[in-house]
Amino acid sequence: MTMTSLAPQAPHALLSRYNAVRSRSVALAAPLSPEDCAAQSMPDASPTKWHLAHTTWFFETFVLEAHEAGFTPFAPAFRVLFNSYYNGVGAKHPRPQRGLLTRPALNEVLAYRANVDARMARLLPTVAHDAALRGLIELGLQHEQQHQELMLTDIQHLLSCNPLFPAYAEVSDTVAPEATEALVWHTFGEGLAQIGHAGSGFAFDNEGPRHRVYLHPYALASRLVTQAEYLAFVEDGGYRNPLLWLAEGWDWRAAQGLEQPLYWHRMEEGAWHHFTLTGLQPLQGGQPVLHLSYYEADAYARWVGARLPTEAEWEHAAAQEVHPMEQLFGVAWQWTQSSYAPYPGFQVAAGAVGEYNGKFMVNQYVLRGSSCATPPGHERLTYRNFFPATARWQFTGIRLARDLG
Amino acid sequence: MTMTSLAPQAPHALLSRYNAVRSRSVALAAPLSPEDCAAQSMPDASPTKWHLAHTTWFFETFVLEAHEAGFTPFAPAFRVLFNSYYNGVGAKHPRPQRGLLTRPALNEVLAYRANVDARMARLLPTVAHDAALRGLIELGLQHEQQHQELMLTDIQHLLSCNPLFPAYAEVSDTVAPEATEALVWHTFGEGLAQIGHAGSGFAFDNEGPRHRVYLHPYALASRLVTQAEYLAFVEDGGYRNPLLWLAEGWDWRAAQGLEQPLYWHRMEEGAWHHFTLTGLQPLQGGQPVLHLSYYEADAYARWVGARLPTEAEWEHAAAQEVHPMEQLFGVAWQWTQSSYAPYPGFQVAAGAVGEYNGKFMVNQYVLRGSSCATPPGHERLTYRNFFPATARWQFTGIRLARDLG
Amino acid sequence: MTMTSLAPQAPHALLSRYNAVRSRSVALAAPLSPEDCAAQSMPDASPTKWHLAHTTWFFETFVLEAHEAGFTPFAPAFRVLFNSYYNGVGAKHPRPQRGLLTRPALNEVLAYRANVDARMARLLPTVAHDAALRGLIELGLQHEQQHQELMLTDIQHLLSCNPLFPAYAEVSDTVAPEATEALVWHTFGEGLAQIGHAGSGFAFDNEGPRHRVYLHPYALASRLVTQAEYLAFVEDGGYRNPLLWLAEGWDWRAAQGLEQPLYWHRMEEGAWHHFTLTGLQPLQGGQPVLHLSYYEADAYARWVGARLPTEAEWEHAAAQEVHPMEQLFGVAWQWTQSSYAPYPGFQVAAGAVGEYNGKFMVNQYVLRGSSCATPPGHERLTYRNFFPATARWQFTGIRLARDLG
Amino acid sequence: MTMTSLAPQAPHALLSRYNAVRSRSVALAAPLSPEDCAAQSMPDASPTKWHLAHTTWFFETFVLEAHEAGFTPFAPAFRVLFNSYYNGVGAKHPRPQRGLLTRPALNEVLAYRANVDARMARLLPTVAHDAALRGLIELGLQHEQQHQELMLTDIQHLLSCNPLFPAYAEVSDTVAPEATEALVWHTFGEGLAQIGHAGSGFAFDNEGPRHRVYLHPYALASRLVTQAEYLAFVEDGGYRNPLLWLAEGWDWRAAQGLEQPLYWHRMEEGAWHHFTLTGLQPLQGGQPVLHLSYYEADAYARWVGARLPTEAEWEHAAAQEVHPMEQLFGVAWQWTQSSYAPYPGFQVAAGAVGEYNGKFMVNQYVLRGSSCATPPGHERLTYRNFFPATARWQFTGIRLARDLG
Repeated sequence: MTMTSLAPQAPHALLSRYNAVRSRSVALAAPLSPEDCAAQSMPDASPTKWHLAHTTWFFETFVLEAHEAGFTPFAPAFRVLFNSYYNGVGAKHPRPQRGLLTRPALNEVLAYRANVDARMARLLPTVAHDAALRGLIELGLQHEQQHQELMLTDIQHLLSCNPLFPAYAEVSDTVAPEATEALVWHTFGEGLAQIGHAGSGFAFDNEGPRHRVYLHPYALASRLVTQAEYLAFVEDGGYRNPLLWLAEGWDWRAAQGLEQPLYWHRMEEGAWHHFTLTGLQPLQGGQPVLHLSYYEADAYARWVGARLPTEAEWEHAAAQEVHPMEQLFGVAWQWTQSSYAPYPGFQVAAGAVGEYNGKFMVNQYVLRGSSCATPPGHERLTYRNFFPATARWQFTGIRLARDLG
Repeated sequence: MTMTSLAPQAPHALLSRYNAVRSRSVALAAPLSPEDCAAQSMPDASPTKWHLAHTTWFFETFVLEAHEAGFTPFAPAFRVLFNSYYNGVGAKHPRPQRGLLTRPALNEVLAYRANVDARMARLLPTVAHDAALRGLIELGLQHEQQHQELMLTDIQHLLSCNPLFPAYAEVSDTVAPEATEALVWHTFGEGLAQIGHAGSGFAFDNEGPRHRVYLHPYALASRLVTQAEYLAFVEDGGYRNPLLWLAEGWDWRAAQGLEQPLYWHRMEEGAWHHFTLTGLQPLQGGQPVLHLSYYEADAYARWVGARLPTEAEWEHAAAQEVHPMEQLFGVAWQWTQSSYAPYPGFQVAAGAVGEYNGKFMVNQYVLRGSSCATPPGHERLTYRNFFPATARWQFTGIRLARDLG
Repeated sequence: MTMTSLAPQAPHALLSRYNAVRSRSVALAAPLSPEDCAAQSMPDASPTKWHLAHTTWFFETFVLEAHEAGFTPFAPAFRVLFNSYYNGVGAKHPRPQRGLLTRPALNEVLAYRANVDARMARLLPTVAHDAALRGLIELGLQHEQQHQELMLTDIQHLLSCNPLFPAYAEVSDTVAPEATEALVWHTFGEGLAQIGHAGSGFAFDNEGPRHRVYLHPYALASRLVTQAEYLAFVEDGGYRNPLLWLAEGWDWRAAQGLEQPLYWHRMEEGAWHHFTLTGLQPLQGGQPVLHLSYYEADAYARWVGARLPTEAEWEHAAAQEVHPMEQLFGVAWQWTQSSYAPYPGFQVAAGAVGEYNGKFMVNQYVLRGSSCATPPGHERLTYRNFFPATARWQFTGIRLARDLG
Repeated sequence: MTMTSLAPQAPHALLSRYNAVRSRSVALAAPLSPEDCAAQSMPDASPTKWHLAHTTWFFETFVLEAHEAGFTPFAPAFRVLFNSYYNGVGAKHPRPQRGLLTRPALNEVLAYRANVDARMARLLPTVAHDAALRGLIELGLQHEQQHQELMLTDIQHLLSCNPLFPAYAEVSDTVAPEATEALVWHTFGEGLAQIGHAGSGFAFDNEGPRHRVYLHPYALASRLVTQAEYLAFVEDGGYRNPLLWLAEGWDWRAAQGLEQPLYWHRMEEGAWHHFTLTGLQPLQGGQPVLHLSYYEADAYARWVGARLPTEAEWEHAAAQEVHPMEQLFGVAWQWTQSSYAPYPGFQVAAGAVGEYNGKFMVNQYVLRGSSCATPPGHERLTYRNFFPATARWQFTGIRLARDLG
């Protein structure tokens, strides 16, 4: 996070943005029952209620505790209950047991939110000239937006565990548009490029420093791989041929007996469906395939004689205006073959927020773009999302690359 | 279950009993939030909501489906969702994932109960002369009472996982009275005895047939082991001396690093507390020690130079009127050294209810008496409760025995 | 073990017996390579070399250390390396890592045996009037005989893990004779019986005290269940019908995908073979079925409308001379439905040998008789073998029982 | 592997090299007993005997089968038994069960080696003009050299599991020289560099293509981190401070309770020792610290305010002649922060040998240099060794890097 780069902002603009982001979280939970909000379907996912509380904890712990006169915590126990992974802050409730926190109840968490929001509303008008503090508040809002996406992916996973296949929403706003064009390979020549964040505007710390990178000639697909294309891989025996897979991916696939993407179901009559936030739906061939692990994305790419792009290739291509790339943002996070690592010159920030990104830079892969579940305005050309190679419950898809020359 | 032994009963008496048992389940859930009712803290425990639904499923599946004119299930999916372990009925939702069933919501399950209760109320006046059917209905009620006890033990376990240590009830009706007397050894001579259920009145199938057993001279403690007595074992290093333990028990203890009974906590200042349904409370020395595994009960007995009784010894002693036994019922289930096995001549009932008891007769130990969580009127001299040697979350305690002569 | 019951014996007779038992262990290892002797195929099994060393350790630790003038251990480290489970003796090498003890080499273990044997040969002539010590030495020999049986079962398991299916022996002396008669049900009336060891002669401590037990009328099969009979169960879908199984047995079966007894293989051409100490052999229908868990034995019994006997029923029947029972000894250990528990009045012996039996009396089932791998002369009417319900690698079979009247 | 780049070679030179490499494997096994050669201490390690057989299998399967007239396998079953991970070749014996292959015996494996060596000796004079085949043979020799290093690391791990702490060798040839100089930071400027293999001479396929990479200014340590330096980290509480660790590394450390490098032991009297191929030895402060995971290397680097180098930084620095780098080769493999990934333009070779490297390019980290266990002549400037971040049993150490400017 580049805290010093935030230009001054009118106080009411900051409050207005704060309120917009914060109220969206509550709105996302509106279709859910208290039970829905409390359950945890796997250690990687968190209950909705926990997301609502943890994002509030972030403001209370990192902003109010240091900057509010006469600070008193809303509930001292929440400091531990809703700490995610900040060792600098102290103890944490064990992650796999977040679903056992039936207390505080949803209503109490909503009261916690209202309380912190009121205190933040009093603080915000006073921070106009403290760029570092304003950067920290913006970090809190960006953090909350990240959790908004997780709220959707986590609730989808929870509902998928219920044989009733309940829908989160009647009509989804998040259905991706079908690809309208045939796949085109856009080509990019050899040479030095620059990637990474620079300049004004918010970015996470892991997006910088902006730096030079040498690219070799490559081609990048104009759009994402579709469900129909991926289905051809499934039906060609793609999940039964170890020569298409990374060794570790093959072992993972075999140990779990996986035969198709997460959420795909072959009905008794043979038709393919997939579970979505609107319930069980027939596959639609032109839509992008979603919910793939890195291993599956890599195996598919090998099957078609292509590969996954590096994150530098992706960003360089996305920054070009000459090529009309489809589905860069707002559809599916796109796996890259780049391991999540610090950029040259990356420095971890001092204090607890230094734990935000850097300590996860091992055994994860970078995803670029954004997804249908990403809050509007949260996406960015230099954004580096990251997940382990096994992660499937995010909205993850494939944009293919190829070597040239 | 001895279905043919139930004497005729006035229709309104049966309905009255049905309503009393059924409404008690709902009353037990009253202090809980929807979240509390939905969570599952371990595979052995079930959500309150699941208990409420499963006991209803029992009546709908085993009574209404066969005896209601024009039977239509309340919700066809519930047949699978709320089947516990009856393979004869068909598929089952996986037990460790009961806590992921956020749908149906608590309100829907209460509606399910009301629906089945209304249908049962129509059926009950017609069953006066069908002894088998009345036996089946009584089985359903006894089954529901068993789940009422599990509701309490399971919710205690769930709340114990929350660092806030929330209380289920403000003032507990379930606090056991303190032992009022010094422990006395009542002695029983050698000879033939009879144990097991016979005659009129309900009993589970595993309680019969009544049969002869030869007993050797033994002594049985007049009361249960107290918290103070067990604390002396803890403080004497009882959890650190393998020579006191069954080998399997020692390995189990070591693997989990156990140093005291479930729910006991040594506070920072050194005082011992235990978590109860009324929250965290100081140990009270005169109260019976609870929440022990078979291994712990056995190790304690060895430490004091005694042993656990057999179930025949327990029942024979409890049936005597000459000795004033304390705390036989209503305080704590009492571990016996008897493996749960069929009595001579035991026959599994035909049909799905035959799965009720018999198929669990391996690697479990019989507990006798009843506990503070057992519904009033549910206890019986011949009652055979059973749990694996590792089970601690039930209200389990120790009544000591000794060989004589 | 009833140490005081051993009558005086001529010194050379004791030495002769000592040498006979001890040399048999070495002879059993003769067909094996050093590698064969060192490997451990699962935590429940031990390397041959470990058996050879541990049985020697028993004499050095329990006999020589207390009774040899100027005792010096052969190798101090062996006290820990070859302690099996005696906490009273001190630390133990972890059981699952016995196969990693490539040192000491087989030759060194044989030297250890020779050393201890020479020291024992000096000691034995001096013990004629010390009945307790002679009882302890006899316990060591009986202990070694138990390990001789384990050497065979453990090596069979190890060799079964090798796709080459190597044979331990060219021609087996251990092939059971085919059953020569149709199965007959021998009946036994109701009444008091006595079981358990009494009188002179060696027995393990768990075989006594001899005591009364009340038996209900029952019938016992004249012979063991054959491979052909068990095959009919397999081919009738016995492994696919949960209603035939104990619930825990079914879960165990399903988790491992078991479809037939251990060591059975259906060849590509459809014929059934089983792996034996003489390699892979065709099933022979008249021979007894072997290598069954308690769960499988119980499921088979239910399938034929019978049950497993209790150990009291088995012993009472075996002690009768009126009924010509076949295959009581020397063919297969016979599962009983009796949980392994202390007899009335059982007392654990003082000192480390008190850990021999008592501490295993939980979650195991008693097997009666003896098997084709039991050393000649080691069997006894009152012998109580015991294994967990999951154990399959021993020579375990089925003798059926039925209720009468 | 760049098979076409191998220049013609005199036939006797090839045979001579073949014999030299092959006989070194047998010599490495000479100090070991048959038991030592057969055991497997963990799934990641293989028995010495298996290494001896598998490297032979490589020549028989990839060279002789295609090029020997009248090819007949030495033993058909070996095709499966000694296949490591080549799915293109067919079935494989499960890796974690290699230690159960007590047959074939060590002598038979040595006979297998002699047989294949004799057949190779007949083939080699005929391959002078077949560059591809000669490249394949060289690949087999390089492959065998890799396994020679693994033989040493795996036997060290096995012996470390034995409380006797046996030594592999009396006097080690592999003791690293003590660092003779203070650590100096060599600096390297910004700009384009080239890394990767090109030109004549053998290299593995993963070392190419040679390609441009843009480097940012950095400094690299002139030597490896010593045991004394690492001990200071241990004694400063480095293993107890989560802020020094990658999150995944901290969880891994905590789950296993790690407090020091693999093979380090603090004696009862407080002195530090480490287990080596010559047995348990006192730490020698000036020697390089070994047997570190990536997580530990990374945490140490953070503790001293440095970081691990990228592989490009390492190779670029090592290729310079201006800076006198110590301990680049022959001491310890040096962790880099570079995830193991294909170089730009990397293509997997056709056929089974295409499985050699490419399919492992996920969730592993590149190590550069070579170690004291690397066969002489096997090291190379462009060599890319790779292991998961958890690997500790290799000879792995730390060369620090820092950002400049």
